[in-house]
Amino acid sequence: MITSSANKGVKEVIQLEQKAKVRREQGLFVVEGIKMFLEAPIDRIEKVYIAETFSRQMTEQCKEKLEALSSCYELVSDEIFQKMSDTKTPQGILCVMRQNQYILESMFTVSHPMFIMLEAIQDPGNLGTIFRAAEGAGVAGVIMSSDTVDIYNPKTIRSTMGSVYRMPFIYAQNLDIIIEEMQKRKIAVYAAHLQGAKAYDTCEYKSGTAFLIGNEANGLKEETAKKADAAIKIPMSGKVESLNAAVAASVLMYEAARQRR
Amino acid sequence: MITSSANKGVKEVIQLEQKAKVRREQGLFVVEGIKMFLEAPIDRIEKVYIAETFSRQMTEQCKEKLEALSSCYELVSDEIFQKMSDTKTPQGILCVMRQNQYILESMFTVSHPMFIMLEAIQDPGNLGTIFRAAEGAGVAGVIMSSDTVDIYNPKTIRSTMGSVYRMPFIYAQNLDIIIEEMQKRKIAVYAAHLQGAKAYDTCEYKSGTAFLIGNEANGLKEETAKKADAAIKIPMSGKVESLNAAVAASVLMYEAARQRR
Repeated sequence: MITSSANKGVKEVIQLEQKAKVRREQGLFVVEGIKMFLEAPIDRIEKVYIAETFSRQMTEQCKEKLEALSSCYELVSDEIFQKMSDTKTPQGILCVMRQNQYILESMFTVSHPMFIMLEAIQDPGNLGTIFRAAEGAGVAGVIMSSDTVDIYNPKTIRSTMGSVYRMPFIYAQNLDIIIEEMQKRKIAVYAAHLQGAKAYDTCEYKSGTAFLIGNEANGLKEETAKKADAAIKIPMSGKVESLNAAVAASVLMYEAARQRR
Repeated sequence: MITSSANKGVKEVIQLEQKAKVRREQGLFVVEGIKMFLEAPIDRIEKVYIAETFSRQMTEQCKEKLEALSSCYELVSDEIFQKMSDTKTPQGILCVMRQNQYILESMFTVSHPMFIMLEAIQDPGNLGTIFRAAEGAGVAGVIMSSDTVDIYNPKTIRSTMGSVYRMPFIYAQNLDIIIEEMQKRKIAVYAAHLQGAKAYDTCEYKSGTAFLIGNEANGLKEETAKKADAAIKIPMSGKVESLNAAVAASVLMYEAARQRR
């Protein structure tokens, strides 16, 4: 059992939680909690850490999954586990996982795919919430500008509620090139824009569709918005200037899903 | 200029930010930042605190509003202001505001009102995001069970982006009684439920409509869900079990807004 915070594994977990650079360099990330452990693809689990108290109260489901792992797990004292955890009240289980690499090409294999494209989303909770909503809406992939917050940030992972394992995504050095690629493939690109010429619910999204969503404070860059086939807005009452980015993205994705049903 | 954290006003602000009980007892709350100051109803501002550096860089708009306040503001050293602020990088202005009291009766004055009813929402960011989205969707009022997080929590206020000033709301000791009141007034109450019998987009929301949204982890209590006229679900792809509460609420509110346009 690990009882010292000087342990190499403990230090690695903390570094992976705190630093996007370390996650990128090592191609690893950390997930916490029972749900995230149970949903984790077995072939991507590098290591599992279990708090002492939790190890004595584990459900059968957890035990079965652990056994399937060919014993790559370690016990940790509750005190040290608390230090390894990114949450105030840790559930007592966390895993080091290998990152997945997705390819844009493979996102086009479904017919009439729906995409969500994010430019410089900064709030980890917003990004995770968009992943979760996107999976539910049947989105084929999430494309993010390289200055979007890291999907493997612990807060983002938590908000995805498991969708991080299943929703294909890429970070794009240049969003413009991806927009052009979409257009080449007859996928209509819609920019969510406060000055959009059309109300979002007057467009048809049954064919291939991509929604462009901008930064929380500043929206889309004008250059990016101009690249889109159309700018759409969500009509709003009251004195509200804009919607939360995850809410705006979801309203658009679920309107498309509604039309497609 | 205030330069000590022993100052009575400084202590009051910190108490108001940290404790829902103090906010409730005093009928006050704290808002931060330029946008929240500029949108604050003048007759509800009790006091304004301004950081020294910010006072020298204020925009004309801020200066004009301050003048209209008959000088109930105080300068604070940057160091002390940082202690008063709930944010890591304070903008340099915060206000103590009087809480508003809304009456259910007055929410029925519009024809075919839309309501959102929340049971035990726990995340401050979710609650604030729902207020913001609700104002944009033209909601007449937000009804919350008494175990819903405090709308005057600093994180909630920030996420409302100003809607906290404008969206009528009440906390209800007993949500069942309000549901009955709605039904008496021919307002159809829809429970958002994962086992809902109908897809949300197969119902008509042009008449008076209330959407019931449950707790983030547990959804609606069965007793509450049963009181509704119908249980509706948002159809979902993939392995997503549920949507974020603010996203689910927004998808429903904007579907109603879409039908009403």
